[in-house]
Amino acid sequence: MQPETPAVRELISTEKNYQSAEVWTKVTGKAIYGIDLRLPGMLYGKILRSSHPHARIKKIKTSAALKMPGVRTVLTGSDLSCSPYGIVINDEMPLEPEHVRYVGDEVAAVAAVDDKKAEEALKLIHVEYETLPAVFDTGEAQLPEAPQLHENFPGNVAWRREVVRGDPESAFRNADLVVEGKFHIPQFHPAYLEPVACVAVSEPDGGITLHTAVQSPDIVRDLLAQVLKLPLSRVRIVGPVMGGGFGGKVYGNLNLYLISALLSMQTGLPVKMQLTREEEFTAGRPMVAAEIKMRMALGNDGTFLGREMDLITDNGAYSAQAPWVSNTLAERNDSVYRIPAIKTKARLVYTNKVPTGQYRAYGNQVANFACESLIDMAAKKLKIDPLEMRLRNCVRPGETTVHGLQIKSCGLAECLAAATEEIGWTKRKKGHGYGLSAAIHASGSVVFDPNLRGASARISLELDGNISLFTGEQDYGQGTHAAFSQIAAIALDLEPSRISVYSKDSLVTPYSMGALGMRQATIGGKAVQLAAEKLREKIIRTSSEMIGEPVIMENGRIRSASGRQVDFTEIAHYYHGQTSGLTLTGEGSYVPPESSYDDTKYGNIAVTYSFAAHAAEVEIDPETGALTVHRIVAAHDSGRIINHLSASGQIYGGVAQGFGMSCLEGYLFNEGRVANPTLADYKIPTALDVPDITPLFIETDDPEGPYGAKGLGEIVQVPVPGALANAVADAAGGWVTEMPITAEKIFRILSNRGAAK
Amino acid sequence: MQPETPAVRELISTEKNYQSAEVWTKVTGKAIYGIDLRLPGMLYGKILRSSHPHARIKKIKTSAALKMPGVRTVLTGSDLSCSPYGIVINDEMPLEPEHVRYVGDEVAAVAAVDDKKAEEALKLIHVEYETLPAVFDTGEAQLPEAPQLHENFPGNVAWRREVVRGDPESAFRNADLVVEGKFHIPQFHPAYLEPVACVAVSEPDGGITLHTAVQSPDIVRDLLAQVLKLPLSRVRIVGPVMGGGFGGKVYGNLNLYLISALLSMQTGLPVKMQLTREEEFTAGRPMVAAEIKMRMALGNDGTFLGREMDLITDNGAYSAQAPWVSNTLAERNDSVYRIPAIKTKARLVYTNKVPTGQYRAYGNQVANFACESLIDMAAKKLKIDPLEMRLRNCVRPGETTVHGLQIKSCGLAECLAAATEEIGWTKRKKGHGYGLSAAIHASGSVVFDPNLRGASARISLELDGNISLFTGEQDYGQGTHAAFSQIAAIALDLEPSRISVYSKDSLVTPYSMGALGMRQATIGGKAVQLAAEKLREKIIRTSSEMIGEPVIMENGRIRSASGRQVDFTEIAHYYHGQTSGLTLTGEGSYVPPESSYDDTKYGNIAVTYSFAAHAAEVEIDPETGALTVHRIVAAHDSGRIINHLSASGQIYGGVAQGFGMSCLEGYLFNEGRVANPTLADYKIPTALDVPDITPLFIETDDPEGPYGAKGLGEIVQVPVPGALANAVADAAGGWVTEMPITAEKIFRILSNRGAAK
Repeated sequence: MQPETPAVRELISTEKNYQSAEVWTKVTGKAIYGIDLRLPGMLYGKILRSSHPHARIKKIKTSAALKMPGVRTVLTGSDLSCSPYGIVINDEMPLEPEHVRYVGDEVAAVAAVDDKKAEEALKLIHVEYETLPAVFDTGEAQLPEAPQLHENFPGNVAWRREVVRGDPESAFRNADLVVEGKFHIPQFHPAYLEPVACVAVSEPDGGITLHTAVQSPDIVRDLLAQVLKLPLSRVRIVGPVMGGGFGGKVYGNLNLYLISALLSMQTGLPVKMQLTREEEFTAGRPMVAAEIKMRMALGNDGTFLGREMDLITDNGAYSAQAPWVSNTLAERNDSVYRIPAIKTKARLVYTNKVPTGQYRAYGNQVANFACESLIDMAAKKLKIDPLEMRLRNCVRPGETTVHGLQIKSCGLAECLAAATEEIGWTKRKKGHGYGLSAAIHASGSVVFDPNLRGASARISLELDGNISLFTGEQDYGQGTHAAFSQIAAIALDLEPSRISVYSKDSLVTPYSMGALGMRQATIGGKAVQLAAEKLREKIIRTSSEMIGEPVIMENGRIRSASGRQVDFTEIAHYYHGQTSGLTLTGEGSYVPPESSYDDTKYGNIAVTYSFAAHAAEVEIDPETGALTVHRIVAAHDSGRIINHLSASGQIYGGVAQGFGMSCLEGYLFNEGRVANPTLADYKIPTALDVPDITPLFIETDDPEGPYGAKGLGEIVQVPVPGALANAVADAAGGWVTEMPITAEKIFRILSNRGAAK
Repeated sequence: MQPETPAVRELISTEKNYQSAEVWTKVTGKAIYGIDLRLPGMLYGKILRSSHPHARIKKIKTSAALKMPGVRTVLTGSDLSCSPYGIVINDEMPLEPEHVRYVGDEVAAVAAVDDKKAEEALKLIHVEYETLPAVFDTGEAQLPEAPQLHENFPGNVAWRREVVRGDPESAFRNADLVVEGKFHIPQFHPAYLEPVACVAVSEPDGGITLHTAVQSPDIVRDLLAQVLKLPLSRVRIVGPVMGGGFGGKVYGNLNLYLISALLSMQTGLPVKMQLTREEEFTAGRPMVAAEIKMRMALGNDGTFLGREMDLITDNGAYSAQAPWVSNTLAERNDSVYRIPAIKTKARLVYTNKVPTGQYRAYGNQVANFACESLIDMAAKKLKIDPLEMRLRNCVRPGETTVHGLQIKSCGLAECLAAATEEIGWTKRKKGHGYGLSAAIHASGSVVFDPNLRGASARISLELDGNISLFTGEQDYGQGTHAAFSQIAAIALDLEPSRISVYSKDSLVTPYSMGALGMRQATIGGKAVQLAAEKLREKIIRTSSEMIGEPVIMENGRIRSASGRQVDFTEIAHYYHGQTSGLTLTGEGSYVPPESSYDDTKYGNIAVTYSFAAHAAEVEIDPETGALTVHRIVAAHDSGRIINHLSASGQIYGGVAQGFGMSCLEGYLFNEGRVANPTLADYKIPTALDVPDITPLFIETDDPEGPYGAKGLGEIVQVPVPGALANAVADAAGGWVTEMPITAEKIFRILSNRGAAK
């Protein structure tokens, strides 16, 4: 169990709204984001992209562009010596040498003395294409006669997975009720405010320094080193402030980084590149689209007996992280409730569309839309209160789920109770619709990289008695730095403002998997706690050596039995003198408990799990189908909350984003071409659109997370689509099964209902 | 004694010309110097300087400047809340609030959106002065009626020191010969190619990051924190490439740094400042000017019996490092030879001229001019060969000098023999003049900061098997990084190119005194050796743990008795996995042996001492006095030479600079105003002016320095003025006693000699 010292209690309560220094740069407009970067002598890079969804490149003429004044170099795929690479599947090149697979595919790149010249030079590059038949639909793509996007992937299936747990056949045979549905979810873009930007600097030792704000700099660094065939220590990533990421910047944009690095290596000068908003939409890596066929077996009392899912995710032209996302989408939701039998068939299919990647929650929110709609459909049929049905089936502490997840702390039932209580589940307003949804999300994957299951941190006592903390975990707005300062402050008995957190330079910080899988607070924070505790021990030992008596540390003061006191500054100077300039440093390594994970991926995949239940209240205009979302109550078990302000901020932002995804957003295509590639056409919610959001925290005390904390950043979005779908169904009398839930689709339900009456 | 393993021998021979990566940025024009820096949103700062040598500020009107479009802020001395500060004496302010003391004194500062606007805005600041009587001569300044520059310094004496060692009175009473002379040495500017430049960035935590290339960043950091009243950890110094320093950038330009920091704090934006060349000359910190009266007592056989020195150094308006420089100037030369009795009286005097600071060798080269001239005067009178006289008196290994320096390794006699042999001392060309001079210089001061006598370093094994070395010692062209790579390479049995050295960010590197007092190779290098040896131990221990058998490391390979091998990459990955992301790191602290240093400053002040003897060959035009320096042979004992190319480079550059100082350079004043403040008027030697230089190394094996190495960077310049003065005297028949040695002064000697005939 976690220590519950007075310091822990006090810090978590009095300093609960502490914010790190970077936050102030943002609110005062002084933050330097990636797009703001300027380096002396810097060139500007631009990319020429395919205008065809599918074609062979027959010839590229670059001579006119190369001759243009101000142009320093032009690169095409045939200039590159690198091999195809990928995050999961090696299926793409920074610049495609001969085969383009979507409108936006990278064909050539220019570096010039300014932005405009680089842009103009693109027009002077002549590409001769032989167009090929293209395929845009995942169903058509799997047909034998369909054009094949990649060698070695017959039927354009990039990845497939089939899982059976328990005995689904008998579950469905013995069921009192089977409900089923078919759900469609389009591609979504995280729509961070700052498009991906970078400056690559070719270093004199042959290496590359990449200035870019990315959620997982060390993983990007590994990939750059691999593709550029550089020793890892010759690649350095330095991070400016990040203007939003939401999972879409776990890897940022690898092709952009690679191209700027190659242009810099070619010219010997720094090269800045930045996606336009249109490029973000048409050549970024949005969330996979999904078709879900699902059926559920229940007993008459509402007990869940089994679930079957047939999932097809749309990969677009290249795979990026889509296999992993598809896997989470297919499985994670199975662990929200006790479901003894599961059968899942999932395929990820290539099409000639924008390649896909990942988004906050790794597809879990997409599955939630289907799973939670189906539960309410069943509840309706069985005439059981949806809350009651969920409470009857939801996972509880100490259980092991159908995929082997070992649930330690778990406040899901309490979240369900609190969210419904707060929304007025039993005191409904007339004409309003109410919906409920529940979620689990892994906090701190231990299977992502078998060689790096945990995290580490380094923490030093500076000469002025302040503390420097070095961590590879990234703060890009979610408040990691503030929380880490608080965690270290607890261990060292001082104010969090005395701790400076450094995380943005791969040369300086321990290797980390970065901001993904809700591992920052849980795994990263635990490493911080251990490092701070190690430093605390060293401070005590050094003080004792300094004054020649045993000492104790209490309330940030160190004193001996005889009453002698020393402060941190004195200890720091003493050690500095003794070592000719070193600082007292604690290194902390958090290595999570070993967990089994078999070939079928059965096992405990994470350090711990967070839970949530959201309740939504909506109203529908019976004439037009127009939807008003009045309120979303978001009850969360993310363990002990270290920083209430940041945690609430995560909920406000994540629920707002979930609302956008559920009701407003989604890619539209026209012959494979993105039809809404601007923020004018792809509508994300404005402050006026966002419903009233109420965060509630069910603070369990997790045995693994630092001082009981668990992750929150991704799960905040997961229950939103399901809660809204169910609230809309409650008001409209039927489920919208295609995201987003628009007035048009609601109107169709109202019309059908009207017709049926 | 030092280990002489095959690895040491081989590395020092085969890799002797290894150069670090930064060198390639310089020769390919890609290096980013301080003056090249640009940060997003950056403002430009400029300083309004006093046009009077001595005045009171009655009023400053800044409103017109403040109203000028593009101007962001204007600061005057009365806006500052800081106290007077200084390196030794607290006698200056970043902007003087009421009292200006030289033409160039800082009065007001402007930050504007560009350079030109800032410059223009200066003209709109109206300063009303009340002029005060000024004093420019150190003699006049000490008179009771002289204007006083600073309170509490009566007679304008900033610093004084009197030392007696042995019994000088009886030495002079019993002498067979007493020679005496009076020598004048003007101010010199190091004339580095890159003027001091910086960008200060006000950080959101209230701190300051200063981007500037400075020889001793940590000491500058200490001073900035003190003056700006910031906790030390809130000041960070990050270094671009340095365009020359030569001791003049030990502290860079503190007022410039402080003003840019204050302007940045005021505006919240980065502020760039850079001295013009004229400002470098008129408001930089050139080397003190000196008047030396000296007499020497000798026996008939040429034995040195005693020496008396009366030294007055000209401080200019503020003291900076001048007290320390004056102290070295007054004493260091006493330890070149066995001189049993010493009497020294030194005063440092304020005048209304440019403040002075320091230059490579801390005044030792200035004293050399006087001391070595006097020795040859005596040799001539006693008809003893100057070489013979020096060999008879020069200090030898195992001796303790008159000031208590403990000489361990010492090849001075061998240097004298080698330099004269090479120049053809006994095979003289007719009509050519030959001169000789010898020097000692401390390598690695242990008394500069009693709390930091040594140095430390941190060295890590990266995942790709390469090595990262973190040191606070600065490479600004002298080759420290290459030498450190070689030192670490010896300990780790690998090629130096696998070691990357990082030294330019105070956040990342251990605290260090930096590049001063020839401490980098000796003290800094020793810390690197110790850190690398520590890492080696850890690598061996970890490998053994990894393969479960004892291992040995040989030729960069690790293997067990049973023949199992592992390489660095495997060990790094193993440790990375075991610790969730940490790297194997060795920390090394070199704490020099304790040394006594009494109140009279008698004691062993450094880790070790380097020695040199230079021989010069010149020719004089008998009609005009025009001097041709044919050749300078520079024989050096800097212990074991780690990198011959860098070491030879130091000698070429240092001797060339010594030649410039001796024959071409020197400040000229007109009523306190610098009369030659440009490189057109202040003549430093061009490549065509520089004589033929022959470096010779007498490689002693120092017991303290890393693998036997000692410092070289400062002593290279020390013997040049004496050797040239003596060679000129040999050719002209008399000594020029005022530096620089110009044709005019030689002509006067020739004329006097002609008149005397």
